[in-house]
Amino acid sequence: MEVELKEMLDEIQSLKQSFPDSSNPSIEKLHFHVKRLADLAKSAPVWRSKVKDMSAEVVDSNPYSRLMALQRMGIVENYKRIREFSVAIVRVGGIGSVAAEMLTRCGIGRLLLYDYDKVELANMNRLCFHPEQAGMTKTDAAVQTLQDINPDVVLESYTLNITTVQGFETFMSSLENKTFRPEKEGSGVDLVLSCVDNYEARMVVNQACNELNQTWMESGVSEDAVSGHIQLLIPGETACFACAPPSVVASGVDERTLKREGVCAASFPTTMGVVAGLLVQNTLKYLLKFGHVSPFQGYNSLKDYFPTMEMRPNPQCSNAACLERQKEYLLAKPARDAAKAKMEAEVLLVAEGPLHADNEWNISVVNDREIDAKDTASLDTLPEGLTRELPSADEFLELPASGPAEMCVDDLEELKKQLEALNAD
Amino acid sequence: MEVELKEMLDEIQSLKQSFPDSSNPSIEKLHFHVKRLADLAKSAPVWRSKVKDMSAEVVDSNPYSRLMALQRMGIVENYKRIREFSVAIVRVGGIGSVAAEMLTRCGIGRLLLYDYDKVELANMNRLCFHPEQAGMTKTDAAVQTLQDINPDVVLESYTLNITTVQGFETFMSSLENKTFRPEKEGSGVDLVLSCVDNYEARMVVNQACNELNQTWMESGVSEDAVSGHIQLLIPGETACFACAPPSVVASGVDERTLKREGVCAASFPTTMGVVAGLLVQNTLKYLLKFGHVSPFQGYNSLKDYFPTMEMRPNPQCSNAACLERQKEYLLAKPARDAAKAKMEAEVLLVAEGPLHADNEWNISVVNDREIDAKDTASLDTLPEGLTRELPSADEFLELPASGPAEMCVDDLEELKKQLEALNAD
Repeated sequence: MEVELKEMLDEIQSLKQSFPDSSNPSIEKLHFHVKRLADLAKSAPVWRSKVKDMSAEVVDSNPYSRLMALQRMGIVENYKRIREFSVAIVRVGGIGSVAAEMLTRCGIGRLLLYDYDKVELANMNRLCFHPEQAGMTKTDAAVQTLQDINPDVVLESYTLNITTVQGFETFMSSLENKTFRPEKEGSGVDLVLSCVDNYEARMVVNQACNELNQTWMESGVSEDAVSGHIQLLIPGETACFACAPPSVVASGVDERTLKREGVCAASFPTTMGVVAGLLVQNTLKYLLKFGHVSPFQGYNSLKDYFPTMEMRPNPQCSNAACLERQKEYLLAKPARDAAKAKMEAEVLLVAEGPLHADNEWNISVVNDREIDAKDTASLDTLPEGLTRELPSADEFLELPASGPAEMCVDDLEELKKQLEALNAD
Repeated sequence: MEVELKEMLDEIQSLKQSFPDSSNPSIEKLHFHVKRLADLAKSAPVWRSKVKDMSAEVVDSNPYSRLMALQRMGIVENYKRIREFSVAIVRVGGIGSVAAEMLTRCGIGRLLLYDYDKVELANMNRLCFHPEQAGMTKTDAAVQTLQDINPDVVLESYTLNITTVQGFETFMSSLENKTFRPEKEGSGVDLVLSCVDNYEARMVVNQACNELNQTWMESGVSEDAVSGHIQLLIPGETACFACAPPSVVASGVDERTLKREGVCAASFPTTMGVVAGLLVQNTLKYLLKFGHVSPFQGYNSLKDYFPTMEMRPNPQCSNAACLERQKEYLLAKPARDAAKAKMEAEVLLVAEGPLHADNEWNISVVNDREIDAKDTASLDTLPEGLTRELPSADEFLELPASGPAEMCVDDLEELKKQLEALNAD
């Protein structure tokens, strides 16, 4: 737009010089250009130009100042690294579009977007899309919006359905493409975010990620719009989406079926916004290595209740690629243990004083084996495909407390023995 | 835009008829219009027209179908009531602008927006505003964006600073104005959302709401961008913002000061998005009477930890209006108790079977007195002005469990007695 304005101004200047006589018919053309110029100037938005290097300079015109400030605050060690990362977002709907916008505003290196649906006015109860985009494909509309917000982000959009044979092939090859960062190990992307709304599509993302040994995050919102979840899936290390019996998640009805019957799932911009926020916050923690990446985070908005859990892979998983990854993970255990021991020794060496005296959140390095022991109790828990399967708030509250101030018993015989032992002293 | 297009088409038709001769100079004018028409048609967005009645019809063109579905799902009894409500949002920044967008997409009746700041490129790391709005006031930019998203919402914007004498006067009179719904009791708004970033402005909102006996919600994100909170404040019933010693919150440095010194607070679109989502979800629960409205909800994104608490008013509060409201609240106790007893009796009458057999979240009506007793323990806790004052995750985890499936003891003598009683049977 700025270029167009400049060209028109130049043309007017030369017109003025060549036709000094005011009765000349070209004056009419001049007037036309002047009017058009004025119109343009009035409505022309000043687009943000590309920024070559992320700077921490505190000026109003720097779109990255508030993000680079994270380094000075001691939250992120090297924020600029965000430009190296590629994130794939499967479905650009209520969660996916907001996640894409958040990552774009954070200056992510490259986004790969997959969807086959069109924007409708019925989607206006969620963030990101605007009414004038109704009728556009969600991928096109997202690219239009995101490119405007941050032209520094490399956007790749794929208008396809990953659950079709051809769609899956393109999905796989796009994830494997390493043109953006040829030196990267593994696949061509750093993380896949699943923002789909049905079981079938989740199983397809699961299959692709198991095959590629690709870490991914799952997300979802319940049909009644009031709860949601995010989940981290690392092939071989955590449960994959197929590790639990499909019946657990099969109660999720395909949205297309619902539409056909003249009913539709409810949705709120709030629940979608919270889930997208948790998803991208964990994405940033994972990529930029700060804080704790949640293995599972639920959100029940009716009670403002936030359940968590962890799930190990199922050795009887029906997914062959998952079993392959589990085997690799086990085989790599000695190397992992050695690295861990080395790191622990280094931590002990510097652990004479607290690293940060002002440790307001009481954040501390915890021995992995302690976490392992603690989590064994929740190994039998079924994974979460749909948010209605979250443990109830009451179950959560009934977990035994492990504080040192009290003693919990659930067996009278055991209790008796303990009492006798105490009295014997 | 559509009107402009139509007028131009009409003009072209009449031009064609009056000048059939192709050599006529007016043909040039015709060409100009045709070209301009083509340009307009190419870039003209199809704006969404106003919707008179909210309908539950499931068609792609219905912007309210997914929200009206909340009624069919049994979440909200009467969603259409949302059009009766007025919500005031103080500051349209990182949290306020997203909260405003969410409420607009939900079809809120009326929004009152207050800000004095301008949109800058440095704000692009948060949702809502776009680069081409740089230089506009935040109120103007918000109105432009929100009116486009949902023209059904009545928007009132106030470009002013509520902490100035004149700004405060306009703020007060705008809250008192009942033109939108003259029959409404109390002030002219149903809820005030404080989305300010400093202590001084919070105290001003607190003063206004105490004077008007206006329920409000407080929100904030820490300077290091990784934690935030929301808080419900009901004058006389909960602690007001002045009920706790100001020193607790005085560590929050005014953002303007920071800017002057060449440093700036960090921010993430994720933390802001989660806090705005929690804030508006609780606003919807409060207005449409569903779920549980949280008295306080914290969010520590590094650990995905969500602390809660409740705070009673301080009988030694320094705010005179707060003491006034506390007195009124105490005087109204007998009437409140009578109403509560009546409601409890009604609940008992219908409590022969569960209201919803499929009560997946185990939601139940709880006797207020039980809650009162439970919360007495946290009465001495200091209120939260800034998120860095949140209780630590470790404190939270050490709370005693109260589930019925197990027996918790902290007194051996008591335990002995219980055992003897059991053995006596």
